[in-house]
Amino acid sequence: MERFDKEPEQGGRMCWFTALVLAVQILGLSAVIIVAVWMGHFRGGFAWQSDPAKEFNFHPVFMVIGMIFLYSDGILAYRVFRNMKKLYIKILHGMIHLGALIFSAVGLKAVFDSHNLAKNPIPNMYSLHSWMGIITVVLFGLQWLSGLTSFLFPGLSMGLKKQYMPHHVFWGIAILTMAGATALMGITEKALFMMKTFPENGSKIPVLDYSHKPPEGILMNCLGIVIVTLIALVIYIVTRPEYKREPSPDEEHIELVN
Amino acid sequence: MERFDKEPEQGGRMCWFTALVLAVQILGLSAVIIVAVWMGHFRGGFAWQSDPAKEFNFHPVFMVIGMIFLYSDGILAYRVFRNMKKLYIKILHGMIHLGALIFSAVGLKAVFDSHNLAKNPIPNMYSLHSWMGIITVVLFGLQWLSGLTSFLFPGLSMGLKKQYMPHHVFWGIAILTMAGATALMGITEKALFMMKTFPENGSKIPVLDYSHKPPEGILMNCLGIVIVTLIALVIYIVTRPEYKREPSPDEEHIELVN
Repeated sequence: MERFDKEPEQGGRMCWFTALVLAVQILGLSAVIIVAVWMGHFRGGFAWQSDPAKEFNFHPVFMVIGMIFLYSDGILAYRVFRNMKKLYIKILHGMIHLGALIFSAVGLKAVFDSHNLAKNPIPNMYSLHSWMGIITVVLFGLQWLSGLTSFLFPGLSMGLKKQYMPHHVFWGIAILTMAGATALMGITEKALFMMKTFPENGSKIPVLDYSHKPPEGILMNCLGIVIVTLIALVIYIVTRPEYKREPSPDEEHIELVN
Repeated sequence: MERFDKEPEQGGRMCWFTALVLAVQILGLSAVIIVAVWMGHFRGGFAWQSDPAKEFNFHPVFMVIGMIFLYSDGILAYRVFRNMKKLYIKILHGMIHLGALIFSAVGLKAVFDSHNLAKNPIPNMYSLHSWMGIITVVLFGLQWLSGLTSFLFPGLSMGLKKQYMPHHVFWGIAILTMAGATALMGITEKALFMMKTFPENGSKIPVLDYSHKPPEGILMNCLGIVIVTLIALVIYIVTRPEYKREPSPDEEHIELVN
């Protein structure tokens, strides 16, 4: 941070920046804790393939960890570790997003298992949530791959990197937003499915009286609001020009906006 | 467009721009047509307070017209009518968004009526869709008011206008995105409610077998995908620096990014 002590105005800006990044961490951890409490406490806890209904409960938790929290922190790596060597930030950015992809893959496995292994199997991929979810994860995977091959290994020429960079940034933000919208649809879907019973699958999970605002309903809605606030903050931080990382004098630099 | 004939590279850019704006119009009209067909053909058509279940059907149609299509076109006014006098564009921008607000207000009246006037009244404001929807419309109203008072009448000083402008742009995009996410939740909510019957309200509307991918289910999902594509395109157009409106030489200009 010593670079910012020199100019008081920049120091003030970085103070705001630190507060915003801290807020993102608090919101991200809150989202993970809320979804874990929702599934662990209200929805009967967790199991793997031995109990498909409880295997489902891993799905929201892993998707929130991967596609919301880790994804957000991966984006912020360039802003937070601004004084680190650029190659190291690149590797960190890629590794956090690889973690996000792994969590998402396990989260997807959990929901497909919970459909396919149920006593009366449930059809897959019919809802808008599932369509948007698959599109989002596939785009995220493609974005990760094209980022890796363009910027890290084997790497494009400087001219092509410069051309690709604004698209990488745009798609990074677009896919995060799509992940958020998919999460909100997931919450809505789960809420409404819980309003009826599924005796055909031997479900003993209690019905949710969503329309009378029970604690579980309020908790789910708060999860949605936390996710929206988190994503809005992340996008605010990465699109403010004053928070952009300044290149060190000895490095080749690509402008984020050409 | 004569400004762009002078430089071939700029002419090429504006060709792309025109194609993108045309795509937004096609997507916007498609969204309105799909939601109207969904409600008019599959969900029994429209009525006002005499038939609250059919009054509901105005809600999705009016919200899509207001918060998605008109909102998007209002944002694009500055890019599309780039050679018009700035004051006229400002008025057009404000008027289109006023239209969006009016459609949204009637759309909200329709859904509250459909809950309150039902034979067995349905509670209001319990779902995440309703929470996000109210937050989005209120923020949109506040954004409209602060835009009007800051930029049009009575207007801030040039220095304050410059400070406020990036926030107006950020919130404009953020609220449009929230409107999109709320629409997707609305589609999800409606889809899942249609999977069961509501004989207590004398509903004769057929149940939807969403999980077996009926035409209506596919249509609803396509509506969601059209809305997402539309919003992504609008945000792409307004955030690309090469599509920004160039100020005419005689006007006081506020940079979009400070």
